[in-house]
Amino acid sequence: MSGKTLFDEPAETEPAAKPAGKKSAAAPLAAPAAATGDAGRKRVSAQDMATRQRDISVSEFFTKNRHLLGFDSPLKALLTAVKEAVDNSLDACEEAGILPEITVELAQTGENRWRMIVEDNGPGIVEAQIGKVFGKLLYGSKFHKLSQSRGQQGIGISAAGMYGQLTTGKPMRIVSRTGKKADAHEFVLSMNTAENRPDIHSKEVIAWERDGKPVDHGTRVEIEMEAKYQKGQRSVDMYLKLSAIANPHLELHYKAPASGDAPAENVTYARATKHLPPAVEEIKPHPHGVELGRLIMMLKDTTCRSLSGFLQEEFSRVGPKVVEEICKTSKLSEKAYPTRIAREEAAALHDAIQKTKISAPSTACISPIGEELVLSGLKKEIEADFYVATTRPPAVYRGNPFQIEVGIAYGKPGGVGLELTDTGRIEKRKDTKALSEELVGAADEPIRVLRFANRVPLLHQQAACAVTKAVIATNWKAYGLQQPKGALPLGPMAVFVHIASVWVPFTSESKEAIASYPEIQKELRLALMECGRKLGMYIRKGKRLKAEYDKRNYIEMYIPHIGIALQEILDLSDPERDKTVGTLEGVLHKSRKF
Amino acid sequence: MSGKTLFDEPAETEPAAKPAGKKSAAAPLAAPAAATGDAGRKRVSAQDMATRQRDISVSEFFTKNRHLLGFDSPLKALLTAVKEAVDNSLDACEEAGILPEITVELAQTGENRWRMIVEDNGPGIVEAQIGKVFGKLLYGSKFHKLSQSRGQQGIGISAAGMYGQLTTGKPMRIVSRTGKKADAHEFVLSMNTAENRPDIHSKEVIAWERDGKPVDHGTRVEIEMEAKYQKGQRSVDMYLKLSAIANPHLELHYKAPASGDAPAENVTYARATKHLPPAVEEIKPHPHGVELGRLIMMLKDTTCRSLSGFLQEEFSRVGPKVVEEICKTSKLSEKAYPTRIAREEAAALHDAIQKTKISAPSTACISPIGEELVLSGLKKEIEADFYVATTRPPAVYRGNPFQIEVGIAYGKPGGVGLELTDTGRIEKRKDTKALSEELVGAADEPIRVLRFANRVPLLHQQAACAVTKAVIATNWKAYGLQQPKGALPLGPMAVFVHIASVWVPFTSESKEAIASYPEIQKELRLALMECGRKLGMYIRKGKRLKAEYDKRNYIEMYIPHIGIALQEILDLSDPERDKTVGTLEGVLHKSRKF
Repeated sequence: MSGKTLFDEPAETEPAAKPAGKKSAAAPLAAPAAATGDAGRKRVSAQDMATRQRDISVSEFFTKNRHLLGFDSPLKALLTAVKEAVDNSLDACEEAGILPEITVELAQTGENRWRMIVEDNGPGIVEAQIGKVFGKLLYGSKFHKLSQSRGQQGIGISAAGMYGQLTTGKPMRIVSRTGKKADAHEFVLSMNTAENRPDIHSKEVIAWERDGKPVDHGTRVEIEMEAKYQKGQRSVDMYLKLSAIANPHLELHYKAPASGDAPAENVTYARATKHLPPAVEEIKPHPHGVELGRLIMMLKDTTCRSLSGFLQEEFSRVGPKVVEEICKTSKLSEKAYPTRIAREEAAALHDAIQKTKISAPSTACISPIGEELVLSGLKKEIEADFYVATTRPPAVYRGNPFQIEVGIAYGKPGGVGLELTDTGRIEKRKDTKALSEELVGAADEPIRVLRFANRVPLLHQQAACAVTKAVIATNWKAYGLQQPKGALPLGPMAVFVHIASVWVPFTSESKEAIASYPEIQKELRLALMECGRKLGMYIRKGKRLKAEYDKRNYIEMYIPHIGIALQEILDLSDPERDKTVGTLEGVLHKSRKF
Repeated sequence: MSGKTLFDEPAETEPAAKPAGKKSAAAPLAAPAAATGDAGRKRVSAQDMATRQRDISVSEFFTKNRHLLGFDSPLKALLTAVKEAVDNSLDACEEAGILPEITVELAQTGENRWRMIVEDNGPGIVEAQIGKVFGKLLYGSKFHKLSQSRGQQGIGISAAGMYGQLTTGKPMRIVSRTGKKADAHEFVLSMNTAENRPDIHSKEVIAWERDGKPVDHGTRVEIEMEAKYQKGQRSVDMYLKLSAIANPHLELHYKAPASGDAPAENVTYARATKHLPPAVEEIKPHPHGVELGRLIMMLKDTTCRSLSGFLQEEFSRVGPKVVEEICKTSKLSEKAYPTRIAREEAAALHDAIQKTKISAPSTACISPIGEELVLSGLKKEIEADFYVATTRPPAVYRGNPFQIEVGIAYGKPGGVGLELTDTGRIEKRKDTKALSEELVGAADEPIRVLRFANRVPLLHQQAACAVTKAVIATNWKAYGLQQPKGALPLGPMAVFVHIASVWVPFTSESKEAIASYPEIQKELRLALMECGRKLGMYIRKGKRLKAEYDKRNYIEMYIPHIGIALQEILDLSDPERDKTVGTLEGVLHKSRKF
């Protein structure tokens, strides 16, 4: 972009900014006297500064900081845009109770130009909202409610459109229809970044068809942008594959472009279940997670006319008994008028809330994948020798319920996996196709960490993520793996980690890594240890099996020779010899543990 | 905070949200028919969703995401708040040409409560701006200009106040005076987070004194917050110490609280130079860094009436010759009216700009520390055996000029450092006080990486930072250090890395780590290699010196015995023996290289 090689040395005369010293020398009296070691230095007064202070529009802010949104390189930009669009489609389908069917298409339009098209069968968006949903940052329905969703900030898809517009000058194209009785609308729109509002170029009613059939409901997003397409660990392809693991109810069609030696192909990830994840409920904030400042604000804004009503209406898990205890501890009347509670009283109230036992938050607001589906997802996509999964009970950080799930797939296809058969024999596993090379490393490579937040795969910023930190902090040596100091353990293994929460604390707006809240770290550690212990048992058993297998090999290697020797010594017939060898083998195997 | 231990099992009956299924069963006809596997599931229509879509205020957004701003734990919150206040003070002083003198005070006000007080001798803030500067996010003077400053986003100090208010319910207190002729104003204010605007509780004119003398100009910020104080690698103490290294013109007074065994103390970092860093100039954007979308917007917004004027006025490094070439390549007239240039023409113009050679951006907008000051800063604070520093020439990412500086301090005080004296002898370095234990690790520990951006020390998110990635990616084995695969090298060493830029691409609003733009990675790599090569020479020489030193030790060990033997054989007197020994020693040493 910046074309460094094109720069040559400054040669051309140009209207450069005046040297700083001059201005100061011309107006030295204007500057108030102050101790400064640099005579003749330009002196800017508070008044000068005041004239330059002004508002920064949130879209200007993010245009300049587009790496915060995941648009720092053309390669990453394509992934981020697809991710934002697919996440929105999944959220909308689930909220509307529709089994999601999503099509993703990437079409190259120039040397570094791609058009992304994502189409879903979701509930659609009403005409009046389309502009704001796609053409305004910090606008949406998910921010203000406490329930699990992929999107939460009201930034993502508008940011993708903003990036497209910034790099190509082209607006987004949106088609949406909310049902058979409604029209399908096509919008062409861009964002006015100085004012953070949509700029609608055209809108019209169209006949929307897919494969020659009218589309009843759904949304289609097209964005052209400066981008680069490449397969690999952090590609759109990998994101979609992992999304299919974490969303077994999703039917996904992907028109993958050609890349390098790989030809273009149409990939379909069929859905593995026809059941949507359980619907999540919206909850009220839990009293233990409310900061004093927030409490004061809530007291001021409430329409409730008594403290008792306020506590029961505005929070979850508060009933008359809890109110009684809180009021007793804080020495406030249950009938106190909330808006008249002074700051000091509010502080006492806050203290009392913290000291009162209150039931843990309802977890109907979060929807973990579940041990069974984590296991079947891993088994579907990763060929391994050993699988284990665990779903921790829900916990809470800053009042937000969350739940951690961990799954492990260990041992490579075609590896030296051994298993104990029903007949008590140790068999080598049959070699299987290495479907999962890209997901499980080799024996001397660091293990692969597959991170998910609210069912969305996280592909970037691995080192900055609480998940990676927790995996590194776990003592894998105790479970039979090698682990360099302060690093990921080595081995043919993939660890799947999922955090489900009403509010995932991402380290940036691009939602690539999870912040290290202590409560989250603790749950991650416990879940990893739980799976690690089972893995350790398997690995130790594997080592024993290996030793047994070697011994059995010795028996099987030498017994025929013993047979021949016995035949010669005892003058046995061939059938007699074979029978003796068989008996001997049986006796020897029976005398063993396996 | 969340008091997990206080939760008991749900026991109390409470007005829980109704199960999702019920609502749907009651109104099945309202939902449009669609393929869904889950009968009876709640069905939300596009119309329902629309009623919930709404604006999110930027301060609501950051309240919920306060970890993005560096306020995720009480320990980090205190550091972030101090950092934002001190950074603002330094920026203001430098812009006004005042040698900065800053006082930082931390006072404990409760179990987990601290009041931070930062006072400077800067130019002050005019009365009308105080509310917005401290009580509104995304407001300031630094965002819209292209010149190096510590603050750049218009978020920091208001966010600190917002955090204080959120956790304690208490407003900020600001005192500011712009000069002898102006009044000193005291403001007590908080932020209205729903509307992102200041809420001024009181303002009055006061007689502002410090140590019994009137204060002529400056600003004082007081914020009370939930916080935790602790000494160590990521403490306020360390931040201030490192700030003194990177800002030798700063005079800093720090009232450090007691902590553990350490008593409270008043620390002063005296300034090492009376010269302010060279004043930075503001520049116009460089044409090579302008994206197409931005160019289109600039063409639309300009007041220039010809393309030629537009290019020369709105960009840096563009003179008549460059205009001529750009217009020729893009087939546009120099006299074309900018606002009438169509999108396709703008694309041609953008292409032409990229293809035209244009002088590299002026670097008067950035102010590196300089090799000399980096070295003296390192020497002042870190006792080591070997120092090296380099300042790379300026480079550009996305049109933003930046400059990388690297310094290395190697070898621990009191270690086995050897040096060649002027007389050609190898001497052991004298043991010195271990001032720098906390900055330089032991021989078998990872080296310390000291990261700075625009002279601000970065203490958090080391793993996520482009600097750390570049240090890890450097092959330190080639320079004589041990280095585990994919990790920091081991050794008694500190690496100082500074990036100076008109716009530092931080990975989050908390400004803790730098994003990995390829151009920045490249410059980091080159600077590290430059210093690394010199370090390698020193380490190899050290190994030779060590070998020589050992040999010399042997000579000195055995020569007296040879002397005694010669004395017996040749029947020498004691003075003759000593003389012979001396001569022998001289001959032997002369015959060596050192």
